[in-house]
Amino acid sequence: MAPRYAPSLRSRLAPLLLFLQIGFIVIYAFCIKIESNSRVDEATFRNFYPEFQDVNVVVILGFGFLSTFLVRYGFSASGFNLLVAVMATQWAIILNGMESWYYRGHAGINLRSLVVAEMCTASALISIGAVQGKANPVQLVFIALLEVSGFVLNKWLLETLLEVQPQNSIMQLHIFGAFFGLTLAQIYRARSEQRFEKEKFDSKTGLFSTLGLVFLWMFWPSFNSVLVEDRIPGRKLGAVCGTYLALAVSAVTSAALSVLSSPKGKFNLMHLQSCILAGGVAVGVSMTAIHQPWEAMTIGFTAAIASAIGFRYNKIHILLAHQCQDTCAVLSTHGLPGLLGWLAHLVLQIRNCDDQTTAIRFAVFHICTLLLTLSLSLLMGMITGILLKWNFWKPPQDRKCFDDQAFWKFPHIAVSI
Amino acid sequence: MAPRYAPSLRSRLAPLLLFLQIGFIVIYAFCIKIESNSRVDEATFRNFYPEFQDVNVVVILGFGFLSTFLVRYGFSASGFNLLVAVMATQWAIILNGMESWYYRGHAGINLRSLVVAEMCTASALISIGAVQGKANPVQLVFIALLEVSGFVLNKWLLETLLEVQPQNSIMQLHIFGAFFGLTLAQIYRARSEQRFEKEKFDSKTGLFSTLGLVFLWMFWPSFNSVLVEDRIPGRKLGAVCGTYLALAVSAVTSAALSVLSSPKGKFNLMHLQSCILAGGVAVGVSMTAIHQPWEAMTIGFTAAIASAIGFRYNKIHILLAHQCQDTCAVLSTHGLPGLLGWLAHLVLQIRNCDDQTTAIRFAVFHICTLLLTLSLSLLMGMITGILLKWNFWKPPQDRKCFDDQAFWKFPHIAVSI
Amino acid sequence: MAPRYAPSLRSRLAPLLLFLQIGFIVIYAFCIKIESNSRVDEATFRNFYPEFQDVNVVVILGFGFLSTFLVRYGFSASGFNLLVAVMATQWAIILNGMESWYYRGHAGINLRSLVVAEMCTASALISIGAVQGKANPVQLVFIALLEVSGFVLNKWLLETLLEVQPQNSIMQLHIFGAFFGLTLAQIYRARSEQRFEKEKFDSKTGLFSTLGLVFLWMFWPSFNSVLVEDRIPGRKLGAVCGTYLALAVSAVTSAALSVLSSPKGKFNLMHLQSCILAGGVAVGVSMTAIHQPWEAMTIGFTAAIASAIGFRYNKIHILLAHQCQDTCAVLSTHGLPGLLGWLAHLVLQIRNCDDQTTAIRFAVFHICTLLLTLSLSLLMGMITGILLKWNFWKPPQDRKCFDDQAFWKFPHIAVSI
Repeated sequence: MAPRYAPSLRSRLAPLLLFLQIGFIVIYAFCIKIESNSRVDEATFRNFYPEFQDVNVVVILGFGFLSTFLVRYGFSASGFNLLVAVMATQWAIILNGMESWYYRGHAGINLRSLVVAEMCTASALISIGAVQGKANPVQLVFIALLEVSGFVLNKWLLETLLEVQPQNSIMQLHIFGAFFGLTLAQIYRARSEQRFEKEKFDSKTGLFSTLGLVFLWMFWPSFNSVLVEDRIPGRKLGAVCGTYLALAVSAVTSAALSVLSSPKGKFNLMHLQSCILAGGVAVGVSMTAIHQPWEAMTIGFTAAIASAIGFRYNKIHILLAHQCQDTCAVLSTHGLPGLLGWLAHLVLQIRNCDDQTTAIRFAVFHICTLLLTLSLSLLMGMITGILLKWNFWKPPQDRKCFDDQAFWKFPHIAVSI
Repeated sequence: MAPRYAPSLRSRLAPLLLFLQIGFIVIYAFCIKIESNSRVDEATFRNFYPEFQDVNVVVILGFGFLSTFLVRYGFSASGFNLLVAVMATQWAIILNGMESWYYRGHAGINLRSLVVAEMCTASALISIGAVQGKANPVQLVFIALLEVSGFVLNKWLLETLLEVQPQNSIMQLHIFGAFFGLTLAQIYRARSEQRFEKEKFDSKTGLFSTLGLVFLWMFWPSFNSVLVEDRIPGRKLGAVCGTYLALAVSAVTSAALSVLSSPKGKFNLMHLQSCILAGGVAVGVSMTAIHQPWEAMTIGFTAAIASAIGFRYNKIHILLAHQCQDTCAVLSTHGLPGLLGWLAHLVLQIRNCDDQTTAIRFAVFHICTLLLTLSLSLLMGMITGILLKWNFWKPPQDRKCFDDQAFWKFPHIAVSI
Repeated sequence: MAPRYAPSLRSRLAPLLLFLQIGFIVIYAFCIKIESNSRVDEATFRNFYPEFQDVNVVVILGFGFLSTFLVRYGFSASGFNLLVAVMATQWAIILNGMESWYYRGHAGINLRSLVVAEMCTASALISIGAVQGKANPVQLVFIALLEVSGFVLNKWLLETLLEVQPQNSIMQLHIFGAFFGLTLAQIYRARSEQRFEKEKFDSKTGLFSTLGLVFLWMFWPSFNSVLVEDRIPGRKLGAVCGTYLALAVSAVTSAALSVLSSPKGKFNLMHLQSCILAGGVAVGVSMTAIHQPWEAMTIGFTAAIASAIGFRYNKIHILLAHQCQDTCAVLSTHGLPGLLGWLAHLVLQIRNCDDQTTAIRFAVFHICTLLLTLSLSLLMGMITGILLKWNFWKPPQDRKCFDDQAFWKFPHIAVSI
């Protein structure tokens, strides 16, 4: 079937992108400089550069190829991911630099600020996972910019009001991204009637998606440890080893649970892909409280179980009861493991406290962190979802969902007709 | 054909994985700590981390995607590789830490011990290449744990009895892994009658496999140099440059030999994949004796020839005479180049010796190293092969070999029926 | 159709490769040593190694997989790229070492010389992009060796006659490679009548090609910054941040232009792939004159526009008027952005000059640089093109162009017949 009925992107996407991009260049021209602190800079650059590249691989390659499993949506999944990621990163650099610009008249850009911006972008890419295939690129860019704004606001509130450490506030990205995406998908509520055909994977697209997963798996230790302060010796090593072991344990546990929960005793690729990273996510959120390998491994074990339960029951339940379809299973990949990591952080920190007063104070503070993050993400998700229903965006028709032909020119089809 | 006759993995795999994983966590809780040597640690971490990630890419991505060429076995090749790798790595960390635990009451974990564990895992993954597609995941996990135990025992014997340097003893992984795998395949002897259909590759699976190969090729210099002591200046640089040049030479030589040995003068992808890494393997085994680029290049040249001869004649011969089918050609990829590297080490070292006594002493010592490694690998391979024939493991039927459908749920098939 | 009519590679390729390879080993044995400057070496190695690996990924994986989009040419695109790259790198190490060999009696090899050699190789791989699919591997190796010789000569002339800095002279690789390739394609002028069928991509080969593109995109900052001297603090950081931002801007701009220029308002994968890197190329050429992020972003924006115009109009025009078919669109990917980067360098440098005399002197010097590079690349391209028309090379027949079956054995086809 020729894609002649899909709405053209010409009148919306091109002006939007050109307008935003020229706007960004103007803002950068007036406000953003490359920061060079002479001597200090050089050593930091050398130490930081390989980890910066690993984060880059996670954000651009890993997230991009993870959702290429959709059998007719490979170009969109990988291409729109790159487009959205570079828009969101440029925007996050501006937002993160605003405070410095307000006080010093200009904001600096260095490898650390690039990494922080890419992590804000990661939270937007998680949200987009929930509506993957049901929104057009104009909507995706719009979602990403709003999500990043919300996440940077949340990060700033946590750091200013509650004095959360930067590396802890940024790790809320899993919780913020997942619940923002779920609220959005719930309100936007696109239904694809051809879902059962186009949401499947085949043996080749499953491999592309496995490739993305393997890159996420391999470089997740860098993603977790990159912002850990290395002033306290051993913290960074602990983060890397802990993440590695937690990922290993959750890979084994997911495999066991996938076989257990299948009536015929077979592996389910979708199940594995949504559970295998759970350990890494949970350890990322609770990292500052983990001191021994077995703690990280136990968290990885529990996170894989939570994620598997989430995948088996909640997805079906949510789908039927609320008609909210979560394409990339962000609830079980990022949402539940993130909450579990938060809980583990609380439990471990209280166990380490000497007296009860400190423990209670920490508990209150920690619960406030979660409540703030959750309420802001639900609120922003709701607003974005309402704005997204606007017909101005020309959303794809139901039968054009999950289909590259709505957005991409296929030369061999054009010729064969 | 629906996969309804394939034996379920439920009753064997899930309990085994959960039992082992919980056991590992308990052992880690009592014996393994994260090692933090304050100051020293930090610099080492910074220097070591990028190479650790390269080894990770070699083990998880490279070995995993190398055998995705099997046209209906892509999910299993990449997925089981990850599963087996993380089990074997956790087990190797425990085994490698036992000595320290015995003397000091606990074992430490740091980046170096993770890398050593991943290299032990690599030797298990090489062995598994010989039975790829003919064993179910329960058997693969079982093989991997026994192989790693054997390899760590071999490493300990070499280092204790013969005082071999750690970086040399660990590089026996190619020889140990290949001959363990071949003995195992010979005894286990699964026959697949549909072999000629499912063991083929198509134009897409060939590309996935090329992708894995290219990653192995690119990061092989890191794999060889990561454990080289950098106290002697230039050793590490020599290892990297030597490996790079040897790989370059064996890529060119394999291409020439592949064309020469084909009656129609065409390239053979399987031939290239099994010979192109030969130079890297041989240089890895003989690294400590190589001082000039041309030595590494000559070794790469000879290794590619040895590997090509192995591929053309030995595989057919072994297949017909012994009915031992070596799926991933581990004999020509790791076995023969490993032996050649051992020989090159001997020749180069003797040439560098000043007097005859030292030369003879070294030769005796070097031959003992090889004999010990070979006999232990054959013995362990034999034991594992015998245990593997046990029907308790529910091995896949012959016509389910090399087939993802025996182990994986395919949603689009389930729906279309 | 069985590939029985394709000319065998046996009588040409195998002897050529073996002869060249043995020749290289002999030359290395007499002239090239591993360079070890004791203390200095160690720190440099540590700092340099991750970037060396990134360049390796760009050259071997990125360029190799970028042209796998050709639906029946995946094995050749990735395999021949590896073959040609390792030949060219070995040859470039020899050529770059000749000066040192002449004065000191031997040439050293270290990570820096490997990186320089890989960048010379990159220029050869760009040229080959223009004749991809229309030449056999013998011809590709021949082109690569001549191109590298020409490029090293150009580099030496620029550095000796005009005293261009090494990092600027090597960045001419985009201009030199693109115009060499275009002249070559123009003179060689192979016509494939089945072009419209085999030059297409399908949904899977498009993804492989996207994978190559994403790796190029991610590691382009390393490719640009690896040779930047880090004696002046902040230069390297500036190169990385500038390249990253320029790539981000050109990704967004290309997406907008691709949608704008399509009558149905859809994305065109080929268009995106040839424009998305334009910013990185242009910034690479003009790097030493860029001091602020917005300058890099503006260059990225303009480069994407130039590249898009080049893709839309010039390719069609060149194809019709000159019958010169540029398979991988090297004109729009490397040629025009390279020229634009040259112009940007001129403008920025003149703006920074204090007095008019310096400005004019710089302009004359800068124009000479371009003229020398262009004339040498056109001349060498012409010579190579004339030599390539020789029937001795057994070029592939027109209907065997863009087809793996002319060069590769496909077992499942051999069996099914």
